[in-house]
Order: sequence, then structure tokens, then C-alpha cells
Amino acid sequence: MKPIVGVIMGSTSDWETMKHACEVLDSLDISYEKKVVSAHRTPDWMFEYAETARDRGLKVIIAGAGGAAHLPGMVAAKTTLPVIGVPVKSSTLNGLDSLLSIVQMPGGVPVATVAIGKAGAKNAGLLAAQILSITDEKIQKKLEEQREKTKETVLESSDQLV
Amino acid sequence: MKPIVGVIMGSTSDWETMKHACEVLDSLDISYEKKVVSAHRTPDWMFEYAETARDRGLKVIIAGAGGAAHLPGMVAAKTTLPVIGVPVKSSTLNGLDSLLSIVQMPGGVPVATVAIGKAGAKNAGLLAAQILSITDEKIQKKLEEQREKTKETVLESSDQLV
Amino acid sequence: MKPIVGVIMGSTSDWETMKHACEVLDSLDISYEKKVVSAHRTPDWMFEYAETARDRGLKVIIAGAGGAAHLPGMVAAKTTLPVIGVPVKSSTLNGLDSLLSIVQMPGGVPVATVAIGKAGAKNAGLLAAQILSITDEKIQKKLEEQREKTKETVLESSDQLV
Amino acid sequence: MKPIVGVIMGSTSDWETMKHACEVLDSLDISYEKKVVSAHRTPDWMFEYAETARDRGLKVIIAGAGGAAHLPGMVAAKTTLPVIGVPVKSSTLNGLDSLLSIVQMPGGVPVATVAIGKAGAKNAGLLAAQILSITDEKIQKKLEEQREKTKETVLESSDQLV
Amino acid sequence: MKPIVGVIMGSTSDWETMKHACEVLDSLDISYEKKVVSAHRTPDWMFEYAETARDRGLKVIIAGAGGAAHLPGMVAAKTTLPVIGVPVKSSTLNGLDSLLSIVQMPGGVPVATVAIGKAGAKNAGLLAAQILSITDEKIQKKLEEQREKTKETVLESSDQLV
Amino acid sequence: MKPIVGVIMGSTSDWETMKHACEVLDSLDISYEKKVVSAHRTPDWMFEYAETARDRGLKVIIAGAGGAAHLPGMVAAKTTLPVIGVPVKSSTLNGLDSLLSIVQMPGGVPVATVAIGKAGAKNAGLLAAQILSITDEKIQKKLEEQREKTKETVLESSDQLV
Amino acid sequence: MKPIVGVIMGSTSDWETMKHACEVLDSLDISYEKKVVSAHRTPDWMFEYAETARDRGLKVIIAGAGGAAHLPGMVAAKTTLPVIGVPVKSSTLNGLDSLLSIVQMPGGVPVATVAIGKAGAKNAGLLAAQILSITDEKIQKKLEEQREKTKETVLESSDQLV
Amino acid sequence: MKPIVGVIMGSTSDWETMKHACEVLDSLDISYEKKVVSAHRTPDWMFEYAETARDRGLKVIIAGAGGAAHLPGMVAAKTTLPVIGVPVKSSTLNGLDSLLSIVQMPGGVPVATVAIGKAGAKNAGLLAAQILSITDEKIQKKLEEQREKTKETVLESSDQLV
Repeated sequence: MKPIVGVIMGSTSDWETMKHACEVLDSLDISYEKKVVSAHRTPDWMFEYAETARDRGLKVIIAGAGGAAHLPGMVAAKTTLPVIGVPVKSSTLNGLDSLLSIVQMPGGVPVATVAIGKAGAKNAGLLAAQILSITDEKIQKKLEEQREKTKETVLESSDQLV
Repeated sequence: MKPIVGVIMGSTSDWETMKHACEVLDSLDISYEKKVVSAHRTPDWMFEYAETARDRGLKVIIAGAGGAAHLPGMVAAKTTLPVIGVPVKSSTLNGLDSLLSIVQMPGGVPVATVAIGKAGAKNAGLLAAQILSITDEKIQKKLEEQREKTKETVLESSDQLV
Repeated sequence: MKPIVGVIMGSTSDWETMKHACEVLDSLDISYEKKVVSAHRTPDWMFEYAETARDRGLKVIIAGAGGAAHLPGMVAAKTTLPVIGVPVKSSTLNGLDSLLSIVQMPGGVPVATVAIGKAGAKNAGLLAAQILSITDEKIQKKLEEQREKTKETVLESSDQLV
Repeated sequence: MKPIVGVIMGSTSDWETMKHACEVLDSLDISYEKKVVSAHRTPDWMFEYAETARDRGLKVIIAGAGGAAHLPGMVAAKTTLPVIGVPVKSSTLNGLDSLLSIVQMPGGVPVATVAIGKAGAKNAGLLAAQILSITDEKIQKKLEEQREKTKETVLESSDQLV
Repeated sequence: MKPIVGVIMGSTSDWETMKHACEVLDSLDISYEKKVVSAHRTPDWMFEYAETARDRGLKVIIAGAGGAAHLPGMVAAKTTLPVIGVPVKSSTLNGLDSLLSIVQMPGGVPVATVAIGKAGAKNAGLLAAQILSITDEKIQKKLEEQREKTKETVLESSDQLV
Repeated sequence: MKPIVGVIMGSTSDWETMKHACEVLDSLDISYEKKVVSAHRTPDWMFEYAETARDRGLKVIIAGAGGAAHLPGMVAAKTTLPVIGVPVKSSTLNGLDSLLSIVQMPGGVPVATVAIGKAGAKNAGLLAAQILSITDEKIQKKLEEQREKTKETVLESSDQLV
Repeated sequence: MKPIVGVIMGSTSDWETMKHACEVLDSLDISYEKKVVSAHRTPDWMFEYAETARDRGLKVIIAGAGGAAHLPGMVAAKTTLPVIGVPVKSSTLNGLDSLLSIVQMPGGVPVATVAIGKAGAKNAGLLAAQILSITDEKIQKKLEEQREKTKETVLESSDQLV
Repeated sequence: MKPIVGVIMGSTSDWETMKHACEVLDSLDISYEKKVVSAHRTPDWMFEYAETARDRGLKVIIAGAGGAAHLPGMVAAKTTLPVIGVPVKSSTLNGLDSLLSIVQMPGGVPVATVAIGKAGAKNAGLLAAQILSITDEKIQKKLEEQREKTKETVLESSDQLV
């Protein structure tokens, strides 16, 4: 199945975080590709990746990066596809640097930023699905089923407070 | 034309910021509705708004709020449509509180967060358009034209550095 | 004994923190109920919980949550009972996000916010007791006895500085 | 009418903020006293004030202070009445110092902290009223009426978004 | 030998930090007393301690506390002796709350604040010694000898960079 | 009268802040000198100033600086006199950079840090006086008189809350 | 004279800051070019600019940007010339976002970051000159003359403290 | 080979960080010296080191320090050579204090600041090399080869995302 979501990250060390986005996409049967694309170490490939994304059939790009996290914003500068940015927790400033580097984009080039770290990566997968769900009832239905299941789990979990 | 984007905000005082989202949607001929929906002062209506959004034909919701900004996240909890959160600059902490209240969502319920303030509101409009552009070539084309024009403006602007 | 304090939290993982509130209530013989109520995963139940709280006999609600911590504020929006918010320490930003999401409520809907983490949870239990003590002399007396004991402990503790 | 709420602040310059608490109490017909009580400049009087508060008939204390804001916490150390702390916006750090100095109380002595500045002061008044409403149906009813009115105002305010 | 420096701290858990102040005083043969004095749990004793400090022969007070760290500032409010404040590293906010609660004192009541944690405690001991050295040549000489030794150690330490 | 306090600052623009230290010293009849001494622009003179301070009769040095504020710490490195550091409010980060640059000194070289800005400068003057008061009863008496007066002013100020 | 320093910035609104870099270069007779180069709005031109910089004779690049400031880092990714980054003060977070976005570069691609705002821009010009001074004695001499003059100005400025 | 880069640090404990700068210099065959030079414990030697640096043949100085990190800025005040500052991660504030103490230099004395910790140290070595590469083609070539190799590594690393 041709990928419709591109999951990219600045370094293999980001995979520990970004795999949570992929797990969500797997659980929703959404096809995706995953790649290391570094803004600073492979700038030309980053541009090529972003520039050709729409034509290659991608509909959403999820980009994770840490520290001076330029990947999501630079990819967003080279495509008009929606780009979701995942701030990876950094070793020194806990991801606050990643978050600000990703979210504080100037007017003209948006990045859809999610939470720092694992929760954010998971939500990036869900947000991609929600975007696709606008015109894909199957995904919408699956999303609603997942929510329902989550709700049930929470409702039953009070018993565990001991 | 039936609105396909809902632009909501916690208070009329947020309009000064959120109107920049509406201006972008206007410029791209995307139909939208704009409303004051307060998480804390009209919680029931907020839930009703979010719950009925998809059936009423909305495809994306843009929600702006400041301080303990719960509107985007709570709307996101009640719909599987993509929700874009705009952190409005707060009077005491410059919007850092708004940003963290919106972006740090737990795994399961994403909010697509943009920059604090005016630039963020503008980008919220653009992000909504980019999301719609996945299946709407007209919007895609207009987005690309806008980008091209912006590029030209920048390229010519070095002359103004005096 | 019918509960007069409701201790709720966004997830079972918050229990490690919130149990300290319950321990305090136990030590003061104040009846309470404890439940997982998630703002984002069980929004409708959260509203029902808050809306019916006063009629069910609750007098104070203690709500703990982390990250984009919307539970205390949203419960406060649906009841006029006093709501005490406990910012749970988050994995990335140490609970600063939880704190700001809870304390920075807009005018109209207060949340009585306490410290981040375990100390805050303990104090949430005490604050509930102090609120009840206004019209309950037994609780007042117990609170004063506890304080007296604590004082004695501190006064004797200088001997341990070796 | 004997005051049942004490509104105190560290300096006359805090009045600009703290008057919003008093306005709320006025609007709800709750009797209060207002005084300048400085933790650092009148420490003995602060202790006396706190120590005698319950016997003088006070039921709730609202204390506002800025910077190294010790007033709410120190008053809380000398009474078992509920103490609400209002972080006044400081000239250098925007009230972040005030907030942390008030909210981060150690286990044993809680302060019910509200938002920085004017919104917090208003909410301090409301929180005092909510606490009193536990055993005072008149106040409860007034609080609910105010909320209803606020709701109406919000629901009608979308028309102003032009 | 009668103590001329008072080393106090809010809790026995602060001893791990504050002992570094005592070690410095020991190394300089400066007599001191060490005590647990809690602003919030033993407020009256704190006031008595501060109020009688000068008459009991103390010349400098070193006070360590964490979180909403009110001890140094409140002691300073009750004596005109110089008070040195040591911000103890807190479990949630790394001592930033301790630092701001101690250093941001209002005009009129100074606290001589040192660094967060162990380095700060050590420096509190040294600062006390430097204050005493103004009129005590022996201490001055010892301080200068210590500095000289430290300098020698540093100058020789480049060899260890392997 | 030979100066016993040195008030130095990194730039003439710091005078607006630092004059508050001088006003306090004036009010207490403590002789002082005031000078611009820049760590970065006049490093040699800074060292000479610090090195000769004690022999020239100075007993305390007050040093104010903003941004990467190195003056207090570097002066402290060149004298064993007590050095009081005043973090001047900076134009970009509100003096948080100044505060951290001054207070976070490594073990071995303390700086007695006070609050950011005007309140800190005033307190620097008072702290110098308190240090001198250890062996100067006249200053001690004046300090206590000032405190008494301040107390009276506060006690009377509640009338102004209208 | 062929430019040897490139001064670039993300937008004409950055000129108010960046002109201070140019003034320094003017004062040292260092030839430079100044251009608006936007990472997000003219990404291709940015790459071309960086890629051809060395061959066109540039020796140092000064890049200023605000918010999610990607320009300096992305230029650094496309050249091995030294790149100096100037964090422009942003309207919401005072340039803390700009600073972290520029300075927290991953290992492999350095950006020589200077202070936020005007002082940083001035220092960027000086840093470029200092880099060039390694092999250009004329620039070195001028830098030393400027420092000497600045020193004289400071030494004389104490008279202005009135 | 006579050293052309000086790598200095405030304490042997900084070596764990600073060795990454040396490793880069080694890999590029750039001669360097490494020394412990403490701003606060060996101020005179620091000045001598900086003052004689250019004459001894150094072309770039790399200075690492943590906390109130004055070393880079003070060295920069005593030489017109380019000084690269490495903020060492501090035990309490994660290096945010180190970063602000180094980067926020006043106009007139720049420090080329890199990222906090290990990545910053590595980049300090690279930045020194890039500065030298302006007039040294061998270094330029090696830098470009390293970049090429890094690029290859990244391009191949997507396979590891499993």
C-alpha cells in the first residue's frame, strides 16, 4: 500500500519517541513511510523530501526533532501539505527548546505542534488520522471506536486506586 | 455557503488575535463561522458545539484561548475532527501559560498547536487550509500562489534595509 | 458514611500522587470517594460528576491532573463547590505545565491550586479539611492537634543534624 | 455586619489588584474587612492578625502579595482557617516569583492559590464565596445566578466579533 | 565557645545541603549553632529565634529552605542582623522556586542570597566568614590562605585533563 | 569621611537602579564612594579596584550589573570583603539573566545577591548597613528606628484602601 | 570593495536590530552585503545563498532571526563558513524562543550565538571582525583602538553618577 | 606543533564535557592546548592567559564553564581573539544559568556561544575549525569531508528504525 503519511525524524535516537506515532498509524491501518531526514546533516535531501511529498502521494507529514528543532518548520516551508511537529525531549532543557523551536513559527508557514515526547508522538499519529478522517469514514469510525474503548477503560479504572 | 471551518474563542477579547485566522480564510475563499465559546463560562454549549461539529459540516475547528486555556483541548475531547489551538498572549505570563495549557495534551487527544498570538492565529487559518487542500486542489493552488507572492515580496525587500 | 469530599484524578498513574490527599483525609476521619475522571477521555462523565456533586452531598472536590491539566478547571466550571487543584508532576516539564494549566484560570471560575506533586496532594487534603473546619469544630480540633504534633516533632528534630 | 472574610495585602500598591476581590464580595453581600498587613514590615501584627482571625469570626482569609510573597503562607502557618493566596504581578518577573512563592508550600500548611493579578483577585473573592456556600444557601444561589448571567453574556457576545 | 553564627534550616532533610555551610565554618574555627527552625511549622519559635539572635551573641544567620522558602525572609524581618539565604534544591522545580522565594525580597528587608544547593551552602559559610573578617583579622587571614590553597590546586589540575 | 562602602556598577545606565543603594547609605550616614567599574570594558581597573579595596578602608562592596552580569562575581574573586550583587533589570529577559549570572556562583567565591532592580538596590544598601551594624551600634540603632518608622507607616496605611 | 561579511535577516522588521551589526562593520571598514533571506519564505534562495557564500568571497555570515529562528542554523548546514546567529527579540517570549532556536544546535553544525537583540547584533559585527583579525592586523589594531577608547569613556563616566 | 587553539575550562569536572571539543580538534589535526583556568579561583592567571594568547600564537579560544559562568566573557574582555563559550550543564538549573551567563554579553565584548553540554563542546571544536578554515584550505576540505561522511551515515540510517 502506498504510504499516505510520512514519518520523519532528525536522528535514529528520535525513534524511541517517534515509534509511538507509527504504532498509532499501524493500529488504524494507515499506510506510512518512516525515514531519518536531518535538517542540518542532510538539508538537500530534506528539501527534496518535502518538495516531492505531495506528488508522491503523501497527505500528511509528521516530523520529530529535538533541541534547535528545525526539521518540522523547514519541511513546512517546502510543502503546502499539513506538517505535524513533535518536540523530542532534549537532554539538557527537557524539550522546552524543542517545543519553542517548533511551535513559534512566523506567520505564513504553520507547523501543527503536539506535546513534548512520547505523548506528543502518539498524538501526532492520531492527529494525522483525524486529518485524514475528514474525507475517510473508515478512519473516522476507527477513531471513534478507539475513543470509546479508551473511555471504557478509564471508567473501569477507578477500582485500581488502592 | 455552509461553513466548513469553525473559528471559536474563549472571549471577545480574543478577537483581536483570532481575526487574523479569519482574514486568511477570507483570502482563500474558505467558508467559516466565528463564535465565542467559553470552556469555563459556557461549558455545555462548548460540548454541544464540539459534538455536533462534524454533522453540521465542519471539517476543521480553530480554537483560541489564553491563560489556563482549556477550550482547544476540551473541544478536541468531544470531536474527532482536527482541532487547531491558538495560544492567545496572556497579560501576565506572555502566553507561555496559554501555550503549555494547549500543547501539552495527554496521549489520546491531540491539539494542533500553533504559535502564540497573531502569527499563530494567521497560521491557524493557513493550517486549516492546508488540511483542506489534501482533497481540494483549488485551495492547494491558492496556497501555492500565496507562497509564491510572499516569496517575491521577500526577495524584493532587501532594498528596504536602509 | 456518605462521602463529603470527592478525590478525582485524570488517570490511575496520578494515584501515586493523589493518595497523599486521601491519607490526610483518612487521618482526619473525613469521608471521601476516590475516582478516575478524565477530562479528555471521559468528558461527559466529568461533567455529570461535577454537576451532581453538590446534590450527592459532596462539599469539596479535590482534582489532580498533569500536563495540559484541564480536569480541575473544567470541574470548577460545572459546580459552585470549591475545587482544589493538584498539579501532578509531568514527565517532561516537571509539572510547570500542570501548575500553569490549573492556576491561571480566568476571572469567574476559581480553582484553589496547591503545590506540584506529593506535598500539594497532602495539602489538598488539609485544605479540604480546613474548609470543612469552618463549620465543624471536630475537624478544627483535629487539625490543631496535628499542627501541635508537627511542631513538637520539628522542635525535637535539631538533634538529628549530625 | 461583622466581617467573615479578611482581605489583606502586603502593601497599598497591591490594592489596585486586590480591590477586585472586594468587588466580588460586595456583589455577593459578603461582609469583609480589608487591611494592609505586611509579612516583612509588620511581622508581629501579621501573626496576631492570623492567630485571632477565627475567634474574631473570620471564616476565610484572602491574602495578596508580590515578589517573595510570604504573606499568604505565613498567615496560613498561624491559623487553620482556609487562606487564599493571590500572586500580585511583580515589576520584574511578571508575578512568576509571586506565584511560586505562594503556591509551592511544603506539606502541612496549604495556601489555596489563584491566578496572578486581577483575574486571580476576582477569583479569590469567588472562591471565598464558594467555600462559604457549602453551608450558606443564599450565597450558593447568588453564585449560580451570577454564573447564569455570565453565561448569557457570553452566548450573546459572538455578535461582537466584527 | 559561644556561637556567633546561627545555621538554621526548615527541615532535617535540608541538612544534606546545609552541612556544607557548617563544614566551612568548622574549617575556619568559627563557632556556630545549628537548628531546625521551620517558618511554617514552628512560626513562633522562628520569631523568637530571630528576635533574640543579636542579644544571644549571634552576628550572622544562615537560613536554608526549599520550595516556598519563607524562612530566610521571615527571619530577616525579625532581626537587623545580616541573614544569608540558601535556596535548597526542590524536588519539582530544581530550586528555582526556592531561589525566587528567597531573593525577591521587597525593599526594606534584605536577604543575602547565595546559589541553589550545595555550592550555595558552602558559600553561605564563606560569606558569613567574610562578613566577620571585616573586624577579625584572623578570619581574614584564614580566608586568604584557603583561597591561596584553592588557587594552587587549580593551577596544578590541568594535568588531570586526560 | 573616608568611604567604607564601595558602590560600583557596570555602566552609567545602571545608576538609575543603583542610586537607591546610595540613598539608603545616605539616610544612615554611612560614607561610600560610587564608581563605574566595568568587568568587560575595564577589566584591569576592576581587578585593581577589588584588590585594593580592603587596604583602602572599604568594608563592603555593592556591585550592580545586568545581562551576563560578571562584575559582582569577578570582584568577589579578587577580595575577601563581602560583595553584595544587585541584578539590574535587563531589556530582554527582565533581569533573570542578571540574577542567574550573579547568584549561581561556584563554591569558594560567594556573592550576597539581592532582588532584581530598584528593590534589590535599596536592600543592598540596607544589607551593607546590617553587616556594618554587627560592630557599630549607631548603625544598628538607626536601622531599628527605620524599621519602626516603616512599621508605623504600614499600620496606618489600611486607611488608604479605597 | 567585494563584501567579505554577509549580513542576512529573516525579515525587514529585523533590520532595526541588525543595523547595529552593520554599523560596527562600517566603523571598522569591513566590507559587507546586507540582505533579507527568509528560511521559511525563501528557502531555496537561502540554500543558494549559503552554498555559494564561500565562493563568492564571503568569510563570515551574520544571520539574525526571531521566534522559531531557523535561518542561522539552516545557513550553517549549507556552508562551512563560520555563521554568527543573532536572536532577535520576539514579541511574545522576549527572544527566549529565538535564543534557544539558534543556540541549541545539534553536534555537527555550530552557530556562534550572541546576545538577544541590539547588544547581540553589535557583538555579531565585532565577532566577525575578531574572526577576520586572526589574519588581518589592520582589523586587529582597529579593534584594540576601539577597546581602548571604550575603556577611556568608562573610566571617565563615574562623574556622571549624580 | 605549536597550539593554535586554547581549550580552557573552569574546573576538571568540566573535562567530561570539554573533551568533545578536543576530540574534534584531534580529528581535524588542529593543534591545541588544554588547561584548567578558573575565573573565580585563578583570576590573575585567567587574565594573563587571555592577554598573552594572541602573542603566544593562539588564534581561537574555547572556554567552557557552568553556573555563573564568567570564564568565557572575562577572557573575551582581555583579548580580541574570537572566544567560543561552552555552557556546561549545571547540576541545579540544567545549564540555563550557564547559557545566560555566557551568551548575554553586553555590546562591545562578544562571546560566540554554542549549545549547552556535549553537543556544544563538539560544536565549539567545529566552530574553531570553521574559523580557521577561512584561510586554511586543508581544514576546509577536512570539514567538508566530515560533513559528507555524516550525510552518508544519516542517509543510510533509516534502515535502523525498527
